[in-house]
Amino acid sequence: MKDKFFKYIHELQDAITSKLEVVDSKAKFKEDLWERPEGGGGRTRVIENGNIFEKGGVNISGVHGKLPKSMQAYFKVGDVDFFACGLSLVIHPKNPMVPTVHANWRYFEMYDENGNIIDSWFGGGQDLTPYYLFEEDAKHFHQTCKTACDKHNKEFYPTYKKRCDEYFYNTHRNEGRGVGGLFFDYCKASETMTMDRWFNFVTEVGNSFLEAYVPIVEKRKELDYTNEQQNWQEIRRGRYVEFNLVHDKGTLFGLKTNGRIESILMSLPPHVQWVYDHHPEEGSEEEKLIEVLKNPVDWV
Amino acid sequence: MKDKFFKYIHELQDAITSKLEVVDSKAKFKEDLWERPEGGGGRTRVIENGNIFEKGGVNISGVHGKLPKSMQAYFKVGDVDFFACGLSLVIHPKNPMVPTVHANWRYFEMYDENGNIIDSWFGGGQDLTPYYLFEEDAKHFHQTCKTACDKHNKEFYPTYKKRCDEYFYNTHRNEGRGVGGLFFDYCKASETMTMDRWFNFVTEVGNSFLEAYVPIVEKRKELDYTNEQQNWQEIRRGRYVEFNLVHDKGTLFGLKTNGRIESILMSLPPHVQWVYDHHPEEGSEEEKLIEVLKNPVDWV
Repeated sequence: MKDKFFKYIHELQDAITSKLEVVDSKAKFKEDLWERPEGGGGRTRVIENGNIFEKGGVNISGVHGKLPKSMQAYFKVGDVDFFACGLSLVIHPKNPMVPTVHANWRYFEMYDENGNIIDSWFGGGQDLTPYYLFEEDAKHFHQTCKTACDKHNKEFYPTYKKRCDEYFYNTHRNEGRGVGGLFFDYCKASETMTMDRWFNFVTEVGNSFLEAYVPIVEKRKELDYTNEQQNWQEIRRGRYVEFNLVHDKGTLFGLKTNGRIESILMSLPPHVQWVYDHHPEEGSEEEKLIEVLKNPVDWV
Repeated sequence: MKDKFFKYIHELQDAITSKLEVVDSKAKFKEDLWERPEGGGGRTRVIENGNIFEKGGVNISGVHGKLPKSMQAYFKVGDVDFFACGLSLVIHPKNPMVPTVHANWRYFEMYDENGNIIDSWFGGGQDLTPYYLFEEDAKHFHQTCKTACDKHNKEFYPTYKKRCDEYFYNTHRNEGRGVGGLFFDYCKASETMTMDRWFNFVTEVGNSFLEAYVPIVEKRKELDYTNEQQNWQEIRRGRYVEFNLVHDKGTLFGLKTNGRIESILMSLPPHVQWVYDHHPEEGSEEEKLIEVLKNPVDWV
């Protein structure tokens, strides 16, 4: 399974970066290969200062060795070996009418002293963070998520949509990071779902990413915007930073266990503002967004 | 003691904000009074878009009531009452040749069920974060700190200078946030230091703040700078955000215990950039700064 999924994320990274380069039509992804001293490494691809994409990363990594102490405590296991691989992406478009997107698909294995798998699971998801709300975009994104989920289990979409709203939440602001999508974790073998079936589900979601996001980019990328709208985008990007640095378990785990910093923090937006006590005007488009972030919507 | 120190921070806030307004000569501090539902409140003063100061806050607060659960665990005490007050300030100048400064002075009391003080202590410090290194500025700041400390105990400056270097450290970047200053905490009554003596020490440091910082502002505020130097300032401000949101205990405590968000996050810089894998040129002024942040210097 680990070889099969590791191969899959390589192919998916290629598919996603090629397509995004076509969409951008100016900037190319820059590739950095890196090695982890304790075992494994990754292939980081970052795009900057494009026509459409101001900054974005589409990264894969596969790491293995002794499970770090902090993770042993987190998973409540002893001194075991592990393997983990995944693809993580965050895309920050230049135009505030085009939403930021994040996605991640990952697989994890732990081994006993004889190298037998003692536990394994998939995790991942994809979610959308608009600066201006176009309801049809949120609907399209969620509908694509739902279509992928429904092929596997009708319960998956409502369950993982709800988890996404709960996970990507800035508790200190009482608002969601964006309009959500899917979030799932600890997808383990059960009576109804073998690991092969989970593989089919997770890759179905991975394969749906470009269909979920690219049509939104195409539809909004030519829209005009003002300096004020760009300021709003940069203020909202501040909330994105707050979530990733204060609440996101993946980011904090990476920072505290000596991960490759530049690959982890590629998720942070290029230009960001913090304005003291900023509030959108009553009845404005900006306020309409905040309302939706405070009260998650059933988009499909 | 609590009344005496609470009065002191009110006066110090007035002294600092008046002086900084004179230095800026354009922007005025905007004041927000706020109340904490569980007891107490604060007086937040924020300056934005000045001639000299792009964004800054000089805040006081005094809060009391039942010690929050998370703090009970942190201090390893039971269900007790507490009182805490302090002044916190962060100033982000516009010109990248002028350093950012942070300072904080605070006092804490805990009570038994009869209202008797069971524990009390002072804490605080002040530290400087330059974007371009002028060694004489770092020396002036540290000399002012040392002069204030030396009046009370010759061990204080070396001890609290070292703690400052250790505390304001981005472990995930292997570099200090800035060139340091002083950091002290849990200053409790002992055979040699009564609480009155600690009060004299802490207020001596508080009174030294303007002398430590303002001459540096005056000396650098008219210097020319380029767009590239401003970009560097904004990239370095990203490291400031990383420290405050990932590592700073005070910020995280505030965010996770329902503090007044806008008063806590006034510390975040106005315009910030994250550039993937940015490295200053060899032999540049930017690289010289990084060297000093990686290897703390004895400035006096």
